[in-house]
Amino acid sequence: MHKGRLEAFSDGVLAIIITIMVLEIKVPHGHGTLADLLPLVPVFLSYVLSFIYIGIYWNNHHHMLSSASRISGVVLWANLHLLFWLSLVPFATGWMGENHFAPATLTLYGAVLLMSGVAYWVLQSTIIRQDGPDSVLAHAIGRDLKGKASPPLYIAGILASLWQPWLAGAIYVFVAFMWLIPDRRIERTLARKAADNRVAP
Amino acid sequence: MHKGRLEAFSDGVLAIIITIMVLEIKVPHGHGTLADLLPLVPVFLSYVLSFIYIGIYWNNHHHMLSSASRISGVVLWANLHLLFWLSLVPFATGWMGENHFAPATLTLYGAVLLMSGVAYWVLQSTIIRQDGPDSVLAHAIGRDLKGKASPPLYIAGILASLWQPWLAGAIYVFVAFMWLIPDRRIERTLARKAADNRVAP
Amino acid sequence: MHKGRLEAFSDGVLAIIITIMVLEIKVPHGHGTLADLLPLVPVFLSYVLSFIYIGIYWNNHHHMLSSASRISGVVLWANLHLLFWLSLVPFATGWMGENHFAPATLTLYGAVLLMSGVAYWVLQSTIIRQDGPDSVLAHAIGRDLKGKASPPLYIAGILASLWQPWLAGAIYVFVAFMWLIPDRRIERTLARKAADNRVAP
Amino acid sequence: MHKGRLEAFSDGVLAIIITIMVLEIKVPHGHGTLADLLPLVPVFLSYVLSFIYIGIYWNNHHHMLSSASRISGVVLWANLHLLFWLSLVPFATGWMGENHFAPATLTLYGAVLLMSGVAYWVLQSTIIRQDGPDSVLAHAIGRDLKGKASPPLYIAGILASLWQPWLAGAIYVFVAFMWLIPDRRIERTLARKAADNRVAP
Repeated sequence: MHKGRLEAFSDGVLAIIITIMVLEIKVPHGHGTLADLLPLVPVFLSYVLSFIYIGIYWNNHHHMLSSASRISGVVLWANLHLLFWLSLVPFATGWMGENHFAPATLTLYGAVLLMSGVAYWVLQSTIIRQDGPDSVLAHAIGRDLKGKASPPLYIAGILASLWQPWLAGAIYVFVAFMWLIPDRRIERTLARKAADNRVAP
Repeated sequence: MHKGRLEAFSDGVLAIIITIMVLEIKVPHGHGTLADLLPLVPVFLSYVLSFIYIGIYWNNHHHMLSSASRISGVVLWANLHLLFWLSLVPFATGWMGENHFAPATLTLYGAVLLMSGVAYWVLQSTIIRQDGPDSVLAHAIGRDLKGKASPPLYIAGILASLWQPWLAGAIYVFVAFMWLIPDRRIERTLARKAADNRVAP
Repeated sequence: MHKGRLEAFSDGVLAIIITIMVLEIKVPHGHGTLADLLPLVPVFLSYVLSFIYIGIYWNNHHHMLSSASRISGVVLWANLHLLFWLSLVPFATGWMGENHFAPATLTLYGAVLLMSGVAYWVLQSTIIRQDGPDSVLAHAIGRDLKGKASPPLYIAGILASLWQPWLAGAIYVFVAFMWLIPDRRIERTLARKAADNRVAP
Repeated sequence: MHKGRLEAFSDGVLAIIITIMVLEIKVPHGHGTLADLLPLVPVFLSYVLSFIYIGIYWNNHHHMLSSASRISGVVLWANLHLLFWLSLVPFATGWMGENHFAPATLTLYGAVLLMSGVAYWVLQSTIIRQDGPDSVLAHAIGRDLKGKASPPLYIAGILASLWQPWLAGAIYVFVAFMWLIPDRRIERTLARKAADNRVAP
């Protein structure tokens, strides 16, 4: 139950974050023609990108917590820390969209992604430290190539935003697609463990 | 539990979508007379229509997921894809209401309904492909007349919006009422399966 | 599980309604002195009243559903119908607060309360019709004095708003306090049933 | 289930409160340069502080309810009373941030914290009165040093805001950090009880 309530709260916050972003697509006060929608195209594109990012976080968060054996006070705060950075995504998204991907807005967007990635890594490490190196999560993560590649890529994006803004955008899109390729590591390990248990008498 | 958390997240997003729409009915800054409410009548009517649509989606989504045997990574993303298009309903609703059902707003509204319908169909097909042609869902859907009739009707509405806007509105209202007639197919099939199991020794 | 998801969705919508209302208390753009808060006093008072009303509805809804044996499609839509009218409470509250309880705003507030009360009664009757006159809910409701007294009182409030606005406000406050007196009918009946079952061999 | 639905509703409200606050960080309509973000620094800092406070409340609320044996009507309303005061945190936060911690805004912020603290104490006392002096919660609370120290500190902050605003801010930050030190009292008592039960035959 302990774990259930943490998941319910996280689900609530993530559901609100993902839906609040749509409020940044402000109803235009024009003449009700399709031309009124044109200035909203960058806002819409930034919404799509952030929707995918929050979807990835929800997906991975879901797998990570389902493999944690218990929730200590430290895990609870590491989780809140992750939700804090993710809660800044709608602001960074809205600012980026409204200013048509201006360099500074790409810098901020990358910084929020970087801090969210770091917070996710902190939460993951906290659970592994608590459950031990033989835990389901530790095995599932394995070498954690995606997790290790993301922060350097975000930093590359932040640096690129000061120099070639379009490159920063391309990097953020690339990282999202890298994660979209379904992460079956944890699922596979859980299935293998279940199979091992079935074999044992 | 896996399925429970997907439902909880979807419920959260749908609950927020349905309630966020009411924020488009902006408190009028007039003199506090009933006349201040008159300009809000089209906003209110569009809210009623969209509330019914989201209610139908929640209702059908609920039945569909309760008949799915398990949630794979693909189902998870097909579900997020559906939530993405539904999250655009409040924007399309607010734009349509504020511009008193102007043609272009009816085009957009129909397009969002069409994409949501397609996304629902993708989710349904993904679950059936995973659970097999003998699954509860496959039997329950049967010939799926409503599901097959909706996309052509939305397309008819989109085309009508360019020519006779009132006809587009009438089509969207008609589709909603078509779905409102309770869809007991899945309920019935589940009950029959339960009865069959009870008979078997 | 069926029932659980209906409750979860209703909880989500009610939680959002109760929290969205606070967004009507707009941060004043003054000089940051306590005098800036004075114009917000009526907005705050109307928020308190509506918070209590939504709290009462959540409380009673909770008891009513926990005594329903199952959720049919009709109950599901009767529930959505109730949520629809309750979703208009934040709008009516904000309009009333901003216009310092002007007569027309009290009329609308009463009308929304009346429709919510009617929708609650419809939901209750639907469950009783489904579960039968010997159901837990039918016994618990008993003569349902509060339920029967509320609609006439709301109508009295609506009529009073056209004539003596302060009287309308007083009636709405009175009905809220009438319901605040804890409604232990269902709790008591459920406990008695449980006791009866324990006595039976 | 009774308790589960109270927790779900509280989680929903707290999740919305914590996420609504981020809407006070309004997207700046400047030229999309980092300089546009400068005026938002106090808004951001007040957001961080309030996020921590709501996080603490969610954490403690979670432990308190998991140790309550049952939920009576009085507990239900004591819980709604707590949620009411916490629902004012976003407003107080936004006002404080926008006015760069002006004295009156620190007074209001302290008053909302004080009332929330009192409401938490009322809820805690209601559960202990119901479960008795030998209950898990009564043992876990023990001398409740933090709970007893907070209200006087909030009052000190409110008084300080009229005289030395920076001191008020420092006090609010101090109380937050005092609570951040993980409160393992209830967890420890629950674990001890479980151990006692395991020893008993």
